[in-house]
Amino acid sequence: MKRTLLLLAGLTLGACAPADSGTANDSPDAGTRANPLPSWNEGPARTAIIDFVERTTTAGSPDFVPVPERIATFDNDGTLWSEQPIYFQLAFAIDRSKMIAAHNPELAENPLLAALASGDENALASVTEHDLVQLVAETHSGMTLEQYQAIVANWLDVARHPRFGVPYQALIYQPMLELLEYLRAHDYKTFIVSGGGIDFMRVFAEDVYGIPPEQVVGSMGETEFEIRDGVPVLIKQRAMNFVDDKGGKPVGIARFIGRRPVMAWGNSDGDLAMLQYTMGGDGPRFAGYVHHDDADREWAYDRGSHIGGFDKGWDEAVEKGWTVVSMKDEWSKIYPGENLP
Amino acid sequence: MKRTLLLLAGLTLGACAPADSGTANDSPDAGTRANPLPSWNEGPARTAIIDFVERTTTAGSPDFVPVPERIATFDNDGTLWSEQPIYFQLAFAIDRSKMIAAHNPELAENPLLAALASGDENALASVTEHDLVQLVAETHSGMTLEQYQAIVANWLDVARHPRFGVPYQALIYQPMLELLEYLRAHDYKTFIVSGGGIDFMRVFAEDVYGIPPEQVVGSMGETEFEIRDGVPVLIKQRAMNFVDDKGGKPVGIARFIGRRPVMAWGNSDGDLAMLQYTMGGDGPRFAGYVHHDDADREWAYDRGSHIGGFDKGWDEAVEKGWTVVSMKDEWSKIYPGENLP
Repeated sequence: MKRTLLLLAGLTLGACAPADSGTANDSPDAGTRANPLPSWNEGPARTAIIDFVERTTTAGSPDFVPVPERIATFDNDGTLWSEQPIYFQLAFAIDRSKMIAAHNPELAENPLLAALASGDENALASVTEHDLVQLVAETHSGMTLEQYQAIVANWLDVARHPRFGVPYQALIYQPMLELLEYLRAHDYKTFIVSGGGIDFMRVFAEDVYGIPPEQVVGSMGETEFEIRDGVPVLIKQRAMNFVDDKGGKPVGIARFIGRRPVMAWGNSDGDLAMLQYTMGGDGPRFAGYVHHDDADREWAYDRGSHIGGFDKGWDEAVEKGWTVVSMKDEWSKIYPGENLP
Repeated sequence: MKRTLLLLAGLTLGACAPADSGTANDSPDAGTRANPLPSWNEGPARTAIIDFVERTTTAGSPDFVPVPERIATFDNDGTLWSEQPIYFQLAFAIDRSKMIAAHNPELAENPLLAALASGDENALASVTEHDLVQLVAETHSGMTLEQYQAIVANWLDVARHPRFGVPYQALIYQPMLELLEYLRAHDYKTFIVSGGGIDFMRVFAEDVYGIPPEQVVGSMGETEFEIRDGVPVLIKQRAMNFVDDKGGKPVGIARFIGRRPVMAWGNSDGDLAMLQYTMGGDGPRFAGYVHHDDADREWAYDRGSHIGGFDKGWDEAVEKGWTVVSMKDEWSKIYPGENLP
C-alpha cells in the first residue's frame, strides 16, 4: 500500500514539476492557457490572482509591468510545502543529529543535539528556527558543499513523512505548483525566499518547483574557499552569515534579487516583513497569504507563537485585505500525489 | 568635440546593449548568428570561444551542457570595463568623499577620506580594494538603498573619465558585450562576479551589459529592514557583510548562483580563485583571461601588486594554458563609442 502511494506520488510529481528549469520559462502549453490554476476552486483568491496577472501583463494596461520587473517571491515552509508536525529541514537535522551522535560522543553531549536525537516531544516543541539554523550549521561544518548536498539528497530519497508515509518532497502544494507555472507562463520570474537553509533547498527546488538554484534565497552559513590536494573546494563553516527570516527577508531580496517584488506569498510572522516590503512599492502589488484551515487534508493553525509565530502576520493580512487563501475552501487538491489529499 | 564624443558614445551604447534584459535572452538576430563576435579578430581566443560554445550547446555533442547548467561568470573591473587610472567605483567614492567632507567636518577628519578628498596621488596609489569597500560602507551608511542608488545614477550621468572625457560607462569593452550576447544567444546565463559593490553595479549593469540585478554578484554591506513613518525601507549599514574578491568569488558564486560555472572570465589575482573553481569542475570548462597589453588604445599592465595584484593570476593563466586574450592583437575595437579606440 505504502509502495503504491510512493510510486503514484513520484509519478505525479514528475508530471507536474518540470525538472528542466530552462523550459520552465518557455511558453505554456495551450491547456494551461485555457484553464490556469485547475486545483483552485472558483473563489476570491483565484479571481484576484488571475485579475492581477492579466492587469500586469497585458500590453496597454495601466497596471502593465515590464518583464524584467515581474518578480514574485514565495516563502517555502507552509507556503509551497507543508511544515507540520515540524519543519521538514528540522526532521532532516534530527536524523542527521542521531547519526552524528552515534558516531561522535563529544557531539552527543551538545544539549540541543542530545534533545533532538532523543526524539523527546517537549524538547522538539521548544526548538526555534534559530536553534534549527544553528544546529544545521554546527552539524554540517567542515565538509564540502557537494558532500553536504549529497547527504541531503540521500535523506530526501529515504526519509518518510510520519503522517503520510511519503517522501517529504511529495508534500508540496499542487495549487502553488500551478501558480508558479502560471506566473512563469506570463514571464514572471519566481523566487523562493525562505528562512530555510539555502544549500538545503537547492537540492530539490529545481526538481520539485522548477526553481533553479540561482532563484533560491535562504538562510546561510559562512563558506570558505580552499585548495585541498590541488582540488578547489568550498568548505561549509560553523558560523552563520545570514538568517533569511522576518526582517531578513527584505534584506535577502535586496541582496539576491536587487528589485522589489511585485508579488509575494507567505503564511506566518516570518513572512510579514517581505509582504510589507512588497506592498510598499509603487504601482500594482500583490500579497498572498496561505491560511492553514484544513485539519482533515493538511493542518489547521493560524494563531500562536509556535514555529516563529503567526499572530502578527495573520492580523495584518486580514486588516490590510491581502489575498488570504483558505486551503479548505479554495484548494480542490492539496498535494500532487493521486492518493494524497 | 567632447559633446560629439559623448553623443556618439551614448548612441552607440544604446544600440549595443539592450536595456530590456527580458529580451536579452531571446533568440539573436540573423546577423549575430552569421558573424558572431565581430570585434574579435581571427585568432586563438575567438576560435577557442566559438569552438567551446558550439561543443557545449550542440545536441549530441559529447561535451553538451544542459541549458540550466550553462552558467558564465565575469569579473567586472578590467574584464568588462576599464579599471584605470583607478577603479571607477573608487572615482565615485572620491567624488562622494569630497562632497561629504565639505558638509560634514567630523567625517573630513577620517584620514582615508581626507586623503582621497585631497586628490593626492600618493594617497590614491596606496588605496587598496579593502579600503575602497570600507570607504564606500562608511560614506554610504544610514541611507536607504534607493537613496544610495539614486546618488550613483546621478554620478554616472555627470562624471567624466579623466583620459577619454566620456562617462565611465562608455568605457565598457565592445568585444565583451558581443561575447555576452553570443553566450546568451546560446542559452548561457551571464553573471557578473566582481569585487565591486553589488548595489553600485546594479545601477548600470542592466542598461550597459544587459545583465539584470539578480545576476550581479559583488561585495556588500549589511542592510537593515525598518518601517520608517509607516514606510518599509532598507537602510544601508556601516558593517561589511561580504567581500566578493579572491577566495570570496567562489563563495559568492556558491551563495548567489548555487552552481559551478562552465565558463569564467577575469584579469587579475582577484579572479584567480573563481577561475580555479570553474576549471575544477567535471566536463567541459573554459577560463578566459583578459590581457591588458594595449597602452595606446587602453592600458598595458599584467604584473605587480597594484590594484589587488596580477602576478599570480597571470602566471597561472599562462601555465595552465587558459584562453589569454591579447587586447592589442585580438580586439579590433576596444570601446563601443565611434570616436573611442
